[in-house]
Amino acid sequence: MADKADIDDITEKLRSEIRRGALVLAVLAQLRQEHYGYSLRKALADKGLEVEEGTLYPLIRRLEKQGLLTSEWREEARRRKRFYQLSDAGAQVLRQLQEDWLELDASLQQLV
Amino acid sequence: MADKADIDDITEKLRSEIRRGALVLAVLAQLRQEHYGYSLRKALADKGLEVEEGTLYPLIRRLEKQGLLTSEWREEARRRKRFYQLSDAGAQVLRQLQEDWLELDASLQQLV
Repeated sequence: MADKADIDDITEKLRSEIRRGALVLAVLAQLRQEHYGYSLRKALADKGLEVEEGTLYPLIRRLEKQGLLTSEWREEARRRKRFYQLSDAGAQVLRQLQEDWLELDASLQQLV
Repeated sequence: MADKADIDDITEKLRSEIRRGALVLAVLAQLRQEHYGYSLRKALADKGLEVEEGTLYPLIRRLEKQGLLTSEWREEARRRKRFYQLSDAGAQVLRQLQEDWLELDASLQQLV
């Protein structure tokens, strides 16, 4: 039998599984506009999606490595910052994932 | 640079990441009603969520092991079938995940 601590633990794992998938989609969608790390994190938070730096920054680097983002170092307000934006490949992937999300969401709306 | 095959590959990985999280939620929600494996798969498919047996059945067993489902062998139409249903712990987890999904969805609706 699962006790309270087990349930919390299981819930937490499942929550992060759900969030992980959605987060990729959110990051790609938000990066249709150019952002640097902090401004991306803020833009997502403004839409209700709070993400820790330790989750977001490795994800951005992974997406860039996969060719879905491009990046450029530039100076802004006297500080060098790395700006990220969706690449052409990223835009293709985003379109596909958006379709998937809408389908999943339609299914889940009937269930929850 | 990512070529076409790479992009397809990356898209596929991200799709299954997104689906994996949503699928847990869908299965728990559907199992507020009792189902055996095949009828569960059919109920999900009827709502637009096609899931392979090789994905669904291990997931059900995992959820049962975690205490989120109960199961019972019974005979139906002259065949013994294992019926699954949400446990009390599963109902708690489901409520939490539903809230999360609605929040995520609200955020993503603004983005996609």
